[in-house]
Amino acid sequence: MLFFFLVLSLIFTENPLLDREGVNSRGDRGLFPASYVQVIPPARYANVPPGGFEPLPAAPPASFKPPPDAFQPLLQPQQAPPPSTFQPPAAGFPYGGGALQPSPQQLYGGGYQASDDDWDDEWDDSSTVADEPGALGSGAYPDLDGSSSAGGAAGRYRLSTRSDLSLASRGGSAPPQHHPSGAKSSATVSRNLNRFSTFVKSGGEAFVLGEASGFVKDGDKLCVVLGPYGPEWQENPYPFQCTIDDPTKQTKFKGMKSYISYKLVPTHTQVPVHRRYKHFDWLYARLAEKFPVISVPHLPEKQATGRFEEDFISKRRKGLIWWMNHMASHPVLAQCDVFQHFLTCPSSTDEKAWKQGKRKAEKDEMVGANFFLTLSTPPAAALDLQEVESKIDGFKCFTKKMDDSALQLNHTANEFARKQVTGFKKEYQKVGQSFRGLSQAFELDQQAFSAGLNQAIAFTGDAYDAIGELFAEQPRQDLDPVMDLLALYQGHLANFPDIIHVQKGALTKVKESRRHVEEGKMELQKADGIQDRCNTISFATLAEIHHFHQIRVRDFKSQMQHFLQQQIIFFQKVTQKLEEALHKYDSV
Amino acid sequence: MLFFFLVLSLIFTENPLLDREGVNSRGDRGLFPASYVQVIPPARYANVPPGGFEPLPAAPPASFKPPPDAFQPLLQPQQAPPPSTFQPPAAGFPYGGGALQPSPQQLYGGGYQASDDDWDDEWDDSSTVADEPGALGSGAYPDLDGSSSAGGAAGRYRLSTRSDLSLASRGGSAPPQHHPSGAKSSATVSRNLNRFSTFVKSGGEAFVLGEASGFVKDGDKLCVVLGPYGPEWQENPYPFQCTIDDPTKQTKFKGMKSYISYKLVPTHTQVPVHRRYKHFDWLYARLAEKFPVISVPHLPEKQATGRFEEDFISKRRKGLIWWMNHMASHPVLAQCDVFQHFLTCPSSTDEKAWKQGKRKAEKDEMVGANFFLTLSTPPAAALDLQEVESKIDGFKCFTKKMDDSALQLNHTANEFARKQVTGFKKEYQKVGQSFRGLSQAFELDQQAFSAGLNQAIAFTGDAYDAIGELFAEQPRQDLDPVMDLLALYQGHLANFPDIIHVQKGALTKVKESRRHVEEGKMELQKADGIQDRCNTISFATLAEIHHFHQIRVRDFKSQMQHFLQQQIIFFQKVTQKLEEALHKYDSV
Repeated sequence: MLFFFLVLSLIFTENPLLDREGVNSRGDRGLFPASYVQVIPPARYANVPPGGFEPLPAAPPASFKPPPDAFQPLLQPQQAPPPSTFQPPAAGFPYGGGALQPSPQQLYGGGYQASDDDWDDEWDDSSTVADEPGALGSGAYPDLDGSSSAGGAAGRYRLSTRSDLSLASRGGSAPPQHHPSGAKSSATVSRNLNRFSTFVKSGGEAFVLGEASGFVKDGDKLCVVLGPYGPEWQENPYPFQCTIDDPTKQTKFKGMKSYISYKLVPTHTQVPVHRRYKHFDWLYARLAEKFPVISVPHLPEKQATGRFEEDFISKRRKGLIWWMNHMASHPVLAQCDVFQHFLTCPSSTDEKAWKQGKRKAEKDEMVGANFFLTLSTPPAAALDLQEVESKIDGFKCFTKKMDDSALQLNHTANEFARKQVTGFKKEYQKVGQSFRGLSQAFELDQQAFSAGLNQAIAFTGDAYDAIGELFAEQPRQDLDPVMDLLALYQGHLANFPDIIHVQKGALTKVKESRRHVEEGKMELQKADGIQDRCNTISFATLAEIHHFHQIRVRDFKSQMQHFLQQQIIFFQKVTQKLEEALHKYDSV
Repeated sequence: MLFFFLVLSLIFTENPLLDREGVNSRGDRGLFPASYVQVIPPARYANVPPGGFEPLPAAPPASFKPPPDAFQPLLQPQQAPPPSTFQPPAAGFPYGGGALQPSPQQLYGGGYQASDDDWDDEWDDSSTVADEPGALGSGAYPDLDGSSSAGGAAGRYRLSTRSDLSLASRGGSAPPQHHPSGAKSSATVSRNLNRFSTFVKSGGEAFVLGEASGFVKDGDKLCVVLGPYGPEWQENPYPFQCTIDDPTKQTKFKGMKSYISYKLVPTHTQVPVHRRYKHFDWLYARLAEKFPVISVPHLPEKQATGRFEEDFISKRRKGLIWWMNHMASHPVLAQCDVFQHFLTCPSSTDEKAWKQGKRKAEKDEMVGANFFLTLSTPPAAALDLQEVESKIDGFKCFTKKMDDSALQLNHTANEFARKQVTGFKKEYQKVGQSFRGLSQAFELDQQAFSAGLNQAIAFTGDAYDAIGELFAEQPRQDLDPVMDLLALYQGHLANFPDIIHVQKGALTKVKESRRHVEEGKMELQKADGIQDRCNTISFATLAEIHHFHQIRVRDFKSQMQHFLQQQIIFFQKVTQKLEEALHKYDSV
């Protein structure tokens, strides 16, 4: 889903990060970061400032050292489009933002541009990602999403759309076949022709080619270890959880602006902090750009209307709890600075500290390609290239199948909930009504020996009414949590194609470099370096896959148990109602 | 619902019971008993043989003594239709019979004409009552029946139509307003102008006017006693029950004819007898004509197709069991000769004894008007005319309301059963299928720590499948019996308007006779006689109403208990399935 923008005015300045104004193919006008623009200069490669043209790993412009082949043209001259044409990354391209202070993260993060000053946006759900309907829910498997929107029930039980932000921030989920390693036919280990491929944007390519550089502090080190099932993330030595409670409506500017504030209490500090959805949203964007092969859980869906309605607030809170659970469960995410800042900084009392942390996170150098530098992995001997490939391919099949079945289960649960709220309730209450009608008729017979029966039948009618209500209330207890879980996992499943793509990209580079060595076109040392770095990415990917399976088994076990327990409680309640009614006939 | 027949050929003979051929308003041709024909003789009232023109109480022709005003013309000469025109009684008029041997019962019973020889009719459901669709289900409350046919679900759960035979045998259920006592405006205690009114046909009028006569044997005596709630039938000193089992397909004439035979075992003899539906049908007709103010339970509905299908046979057997239960519960019906003959005579081994009893029953003199002669009642002082009237009116309201609510409950139960068999089953099985789909997806992950969960989810899927089946099977256990009960009571409710009509007719005669005494037109003694006989009818009617309430409370209590018990068992089964599934997660 690439939108082509027509650049109307393109003013080349010293600072390539200043924004440009553009118009997309549908005539929508907006700003976009200049770094996305591929300028065809009058004289080839002349006077190009470093880092000016290409989205590269997050080394800040100041310290950026262009690699020798950094300024290869992305398009051959004969293929070059007219100067005013360029390709934006994806649907979520941020052209609707306000005052823009682009940061290096934007190069790969795909666009969170909030300034310190725009926290107070009236639109709590607002983000700089365009909320284009066509861009929503276009997950990894377009065919599934198609069936989802067709099959999804209208009304209360609606299938969650996957967070569009994630798709945008990962540069869209262009299917892998759009990224064949064009390098295969090339004689050198070349750059990928598609500069918007996830492999490139995530920093994977830059890292594998040895272009990433940065100073990794000890505190930033992340370890992949070998567990019984293969590579896994080293466990968080300080595990914690975090409650989310008391959603409270707050106002600002003398009531002109309203938002909901949630109270977060992490178990490791026990100090409550208050956060808005937009804080979560900001945090999500930081994480998604920082960690190329980690599946950052999607936030609960945005909603345009009814943001202050109780149902919505309750639903969002439950979604945030699930999200927080997954964040805290992830050894890497749970320990990262920006998340800890989010969990611990008392923004309401210490505005300065909050802004400091916020700015620090937005200037974090260890994002994208540099993230891989922070990884400490087991010896490379532990990895067999073919085995890795087969594992990854197996997981790809798995995610596809799981996405299918999750979608199916979501749809079924949705329908089942709707039926219980409407049809089942109605049927049981009609039975109740008919019993009451019979008892009313029987009451016309005033004889004493009839009175007990009449009361018992009336009671039975009321019991069936109550059972109807129980049916209608039940989905909140059992099906809604199942659907919340599925929504969260559908988010993860939408993340994995990109993660897999990064690993596949790295693997392709290894194969290419080996061929080059065989052909004598590359030094063995260089190829070994590429393989080492690819191994790092594979370790991380396999650790992430393992983590996914671990939390999946944990979550689905506990959720199925919860579901069945709630169902059992429900049917016991129904049975109890009936037993009460039956008891009434004893004295008749 | 009177059908006007055009008599094509009307041959007057000495025996007025010989049948005539006629054609109804729709052109259907058939035979009908000559006694229904009102002949307009060339010379008024000349040469009319006794009992020839009018349907009168069941005194057999031989002993019949025409009262002084027995031969009043039914229509004034100036209103007289052409000789070939007459009015048949009602919808169920028997014109489809085979070889006819009319008996006195036919005069009021409205038409069972089976001979000894036609037991073997291929059509097991056959009766001499015309199965005219328009004549079916036109119960006491046409408006209700209208809604019934509109609301009744098609398919398996269909509202039982009330037995047409009963309507026919009671001469149709022309609503009471069709029978205003035309006598009110007359100066004498006259005959009702409408000779087809239930009051007349039941023999009520003849009895009240003192025209019934017969020799009552001691064994035929029936007692109404005063109980705590008013008049009631004296209890059967030899209570019994009767099982109906082993419905077996039998063949006759080298397999040319097939029928189902049921084994009946009455508790007081313990000797099994075998009966076909048509035997029940014959018995029903005998009872319906014999007892004018007793609500003879209707037989389960006739069915044209699928008579040998298991479902139908099982359903009919259940209906017959209900019917037998109500027969055996009724102090008068349970003890009557024809029923005992039916229960005890081993027709298959002693054909002669069976035919003898059959013929005897068909020649029973104590039917209709004479039935009232067999009643022995408490002193007349126990009855206050106004109180009786108010009680009867109250009961009339009651039956109306009960019929409404029974119809409503039947419709609801029908729909509820249908929903469980279709929708509920489908919903639960779709949930089961989706769980199984999820477990199949999870099985793609071959890791050991995942296997337990996969199996548990697959088991949960199967559990929901099984729950779907439970829902589909449940209506047989709980809703079907409720609907069977309602069908039986709807039959009773359809009987009562006629019973009430007989009592009302008698009451009107009393009022009339009192006025005549006041006006000096009648001797006090004669009026007292009328009042005494009216009291007898009132006692019997009130006893019958009391019996109805008694069995109603008994039946609805036990049926509601049964229903709730079955529902409880059902929900416990569901809970158990879920608990089994939950248990599977323990070892995950």
